[in-house]
This record gives sequence, structure tokens and C-alpha cells, in this order.
Amino acid sequence: MAQIIDGKLVASEIKKEIAAEVASMIKSGQKQPHLAAILVGNDGVSETYVNYKIKDCAEVGFKSTLARFDTTITEDELLAKVHEFNTDDDIDGFIVQLPIPDHIREQKVIESINPLKDVDGFHPVNLGRLVIGLPCYLSATPAGILDLIKWYKIETKGKHCVVIGRSNIVGKPVSILMGQKSYPGDCTVSLCHSRTTNIQELALSADILIAAMGKPEFVTRNMVKEGAVVIDVGTTRVPSNETKSGFKLKGDVKYDEVAGKCSFITPVPGGVGPMTRVSLLKNTLRAAKKEIYG
Amino acid sequence: MAQIIDGKLVASEIKKEIAAEVASMIKSGQKQPHLAAILVGNDGVSETYVNYKIKDCAEVGFKSTLARFDTTITEDELLAKVHEFNTDDDIDGFIVQLPIPDHIREQKVIESINPLKDVDGFHPVNLGRLVIGLPCYLSATPAGILDLIKWYKIETKGKHCVVIGRSNIVGKPVSILMGQKSYPGDCTVSLCHSRTTNIQELALSADILIAAMGKPEFVTRNMVKEGAVVIDVGTTRVPSNETKSGFKLKGDVKYDEVAGKCSFITPVPGGVGPMTRVSLLKNTLRAAKKEIYG
Repeated sequence: MAQIIDGKLVASEIKKEIAAEVASMIKSGQKQPHLAAILVGNDGVSETYVNYKIKDCAEVGFKSTLARFDTTITEDELLAKVHEFNTDDDIDGFIVQLPIPDHIREQKVIESINPLKDVDGFHPVNLGRLVIGLPCYLSATPAGILDLIKWYKIETKGKHCVVIGRSNIVGKPVSILMGQKSYPGDCTVSLCHSRTTNIQELALSADILIAAMGKPEFVTRNMVKEGAVVIDVGTTRVPSNETKSGFKLKGDVKYDEVAGKCSFITPVPGGVGPMTRVSLLKNTLRAAKKEIYG
Repeated sequence: MAQIIDGKLVASEIKKEIAAEVASMIKSGQKQPHLAAILVGNDGVSETYVNYKIKDCAEVGFKSTLARFDTTITEDELLAKVHEFNTDDDIDGFIVQLPIPDHIREQKVIESINPLKDVDGFHPVNLGRLVIGLPCYLSATPAGILDLIKWYKIETKGKHCVVIGRSNIVGKPVSILMGQKSYPGDCTVSLCHSRTTNIQELALSADILIAAMGKPEFVTRNMVKEGAVVIDVGTTRVPSNETKSGFKLKGDVKYDEVAGKCSFITPVPGGVGPMTRVSLLKNTLRAAKKEIYG
């Protein structure tokens, strides 16, 4: 049986480390790290995410600020708030919770965020620095995956890492990171997607398989090499009568089948998910310490 | 026998297209496109490159400006010149010819260039936009490779593209581009490098093989699939008594062996090389037309 990569446990351990560091920063007279968030509208999922982020801040000793707007906010009004946060010296980092309403250009908003405060790591400057291998804010999911690999001391050098899915916030950045001259990294990396013709064959050749296409239980036993490391990024809500909420989170990997064949596996929920929240805290701490841009 | 991808011919055709467009721009009263270059020191290779670039400008009807400095120039002085070019409205795009002396921080200089004038495409903003799939200045070699594929109408969708070499200016960006949802693109992409253990096996599975590691004649016949497309980015100067100059350019592919087995192949010289010069002209024209950043 595979060793389960316990994202919940690792996330809680890293949060403890962050909390300890914040406590010592404050003790030594430094400013309390401060994360701000902009939330537009009343989408239930977005609200849940933002609430978690605020709760996480409290837990590690960060200050947090939430700016809420109705969906009627104009692009200019939103950009003005971004500008306000960009220039507010007390705010170390901030995020604009996505998605935002269609009448506001998402990319315009992302690019208006000061890269030095872009703790979501979505600004082109941070992505470009990621490609070059310079210090940068990594987006939450790729960073969470790397931290899990590090925590479990999984060997990556010279391994074949196959990434399924080419999204801008997971597949593409994690495929770049896993190929960099670093640890975790130094993998031969293959990036697969909807146009890939021999996905089973490629997946079968993976020492490290990262499934991030958002297709519930797409990765089956016959796609995984004996002893592979399997990272499941999928979190699709599917209807379920087993839960009170009426839905269940499903990963991209058929866990029960695959767990018996691989060496490490992330469960869903409790694998990559909890790590993404920690990544945001880590970025905010790095912002407060001015670690990346000096 | 493979069809030879004639970069010299394609480059000359594209230059004619650019020249025609410039002529019509000027006829309609628009400003003449203007490329500037900063050259530090007297390195022979750098001088040759810059001279070619200036000659190319003249050929297509661009204005060009060369700012030359002695190697004793300080970082601040160089940054001041960059700032001058950034704010000179007549200059559409400019480059700092690399390498620059060790006492000047190369990355600092690159990041000081206004991304809107960064026609070398080295600024993190342009690389980040490349990852996201937004309009951007592509660096010369990846852009040249894409143009050759387009010119010869080579099918890429669903193909397996194997890139050997992970440099910031060739291997990494071209691997990202070939995996994007676009044409050329939509390939399954594998990025190999010095840590890759089964490079022969991977290369053999490539429908499109891009060799960009700078190891003369590394790719041999037994690494290439029958009918593959082979793009050779290597240009290593090796000593030779066959030429007047005393050296010869060698690609990363053992051309004579491989040409008999593949469907398309780029020669060295005369393949990717001439295209890189054209890429800079294309970027400068796009800058003059404000096509990318509006």
C-alpha cells in the first residue's frame, strides 16, 4: 500500500512554524504581517475560500483585512481599491478572490496588482521570474505540491514527472518548476493535456504523476506505474447522498485502485487542498519579511 | 531524404514582408520604426551580432541607434542609458547586447527595461505573459522556431514534442509555447536536460525534436524516429581547417546521419540562426505598431 501524503498534517505543521515565526517577529518589535483580500459578490464558494483565508490569518497571528463589494462595482472602482492596497504600507500582500464579474477584465486587475504584494503569484512578473528561476511568489497549488514533496523527502532528480493538465495556475507552473535545476525539481517533465493522444502510455512512464485536469477519477490503475508517486490536484464537487451537504469532493485519481500500486499518494480531500491555504500564508510571511524583492 | 527547412530563405521572405509594411507605414505618414541597441565592450562576437542587427534594420527600412560603451561603464551609467531609451518616444524597442561585464548585474539591467520596449523578450513580464498565453514579445530563437514550423505548415496538434535543453532563452520558453493551445502548439511536450536519464528513448518518441543544449552533434541517427521533424538550435564554434576563419558552426544534430531518417530538418548554419535576426525585426515592428501592449 502507498504511503498517504497527509496534506492536512503537513499544513498544520507548517502553520505552527509560521505562527512561531510571527510570534518572534512581533516580540522583536516588527510589524504584524498583514494580508488583505478583495471579494466581489456573494458566490458561496468564493466566500468560503475567503473566510478560510481570514481564519488562517488569525490562526498564525497575521492581521487581515477584507474589502467586500457588490457585483455592481465598476472596473475603475475595483482598480482604485487595488491601487489603495498597493500603496498602503501596512498591507504586505493581498489577493483579489477570483472569479470576478464578467464586466471587469480579470487580467487587467491581476496586472494592476503590485508584483511585490502579489501573494497569489498570478502577476506576469512573478510567473516570468518563476520561469527564469528567480525568487518569486509561487501560486498556491504548485507551491503546495512542492512543499509536500519536500516534506516527504521524495527524490526528484532525474525522475520522469508527468503533469496532466495545462492550466495557468497549476499545470503549466508546476511543470516548469519540476524541470528546474533545484530540489524539488531536476525532473524530465512531460506536460499532457486534452490534445495528448497517448496519455495512458505517458502516465505509465511517470515516476511522479501530477493529475491536474479536473476530471474526476480520470487516472485509473492501468495508467500508473508500480511504485510511482501520485499527486492528485483534482477537486471536483460531485453530487452525493452520503454527505449532509449533498456533494462530495472527487480527485482526478481513482484513489482506491491506484493506492495499492503506487509508493506515495495524496488523498482528496486532505492532500494538496490544505496546502494551498498554507502557501498563501507562506507568501504573505515572505512579503512581510521582504524576502523576495528586498 | 528529409526536406530541408531553409531558414535563410524564410528569413529573407519575412524580411521582404516587413520592408513592404514599413514602406507603406511611412507612405501613410507614420513614424519610421526605430530599434536601438546598447553594446558594452569590444567582444568580437557581440560586435558581429550587433552589426548584423543594424544592417538588418537598414534593409527593412528601420531607423537604428547604437549606444556603445567601454567595459568601464558603471551599472548606474548603464541603467541611466536604459532609462533614457525607455523614455525616448522615438525609440520603439531596444536591446542590451549580452553578455555585459561581470560588475554589472545582468538581471537588474534586463528588469530595468520597459517591458513595452523589451524586443528581446527577456523581461519577466514578457516571459510571464508567454506562460499565460497573452500577447508578448517572444525571445528570438523560440519565435524563429515557431515561424519555421508555420512557414512549412508542419502539423503540431497532438504531436509529441521533445525539447532537449532547458535554457531560459530557448529550451524553457519553446517548451511552454509548443504546449500552448494554439498553432504552432497543442503538442504533448517533454523537456529533457542534463539530468534526464533516458534521453535516447525520449528523443526516439518525438514527432518533433528540438535540440537546444549546445552539444555539437549530440543527436545521432539512433535517437531520431523515422519521419520526425528535427529542429537544431545548436551553434557551437568548433576549430576547423576547412574554413578561412579557422572555425565552423556545428549544430546539436549529426546532420548527415539524421537527414536521411527524418521528414524535415534545419541545417546549421542556415536553419534557425537566420530566423533569430528576423524575430528581432518582427518584435520591433510590433512595438512600432503598438500591437502587444496597445
